[in-house]
Amino acid sequence: MPVTNTTWSDTEQKIAQEAFHQAYDREIRDLMEEVKSRSASIQQIDDLWQIHDLLSARRHQIDGKYDARPSALMFVLAQLLKEKLISIDELKGLEPGKLAKIAALSKM
Amino acid sequence: MPVTNTTWSDTEQKIAQEAFHQAYDREIRDLMEEVKSRSASIQQIDDLWQIHDLLSARRHQIDGKYDARPSALMFVLAQLLKEKLISIDELKGLEPGKLAKIAALSKM
Repeated sequence: MPVTNTTWSDTEQKIAQEAFHQAYDREIRDLMEEVKSRSASIQQIDDLWQIHDLLSARRHQIDGKYDARPSALMFVLAQLLKEKLISIDELKGLEPGKLAKIAALSKM
Repeated sequence: MPVTNTTWSDTEQKIAQEAFHQAYDREIRDLMEEVKSRSASIQQIDDLWQIHDLLSARRHQIDGKYDARPSALMFVLAQLLKEKLISIDELKGLEPGKLAKIAALSKM
């Protein structure tokens, strides 16, 4: 099965969208908790700039990550799985071939 | 008295350095408090990115602000005075002409 040239049914696109939504919420919630926790223990200027660096890096990553184009979808879902932002169970309903491909890509 | 071509005695340079030090400490302390306070009340993603924007802007400003070259000193001290990061009393010991110039520049 080609990865970038895959077609996605309406049902599959909805499953992917819901997975995106869940992953995004979890990622943002984790980042909020991390920033709250690190901010609460700021002692010196370096602690402040480290929070800034963290936010710069994560904002850039997050901005680029959730690419919902059909050609990107399989890679993005694999990445979300790799980062444990979604579980394979949440992709139930996708074609078995797609699921296997996503699971394989997530281990790379 | 020219502003950019002013000479500074050793004593005056020490006074300016101490004023820089005090202003920097106050500025950083205020920024730490602001970040702590805003982080504690993060509710949503926009709150997170607003903290990032704040840190980006303030880091850029702070990096460029504390220019200790003799040619810049009068402008920087005036700016610190304008921002209430130092008081005119903390510059006591500078030549009266310099003090008057700094006070005037701080009102621009």
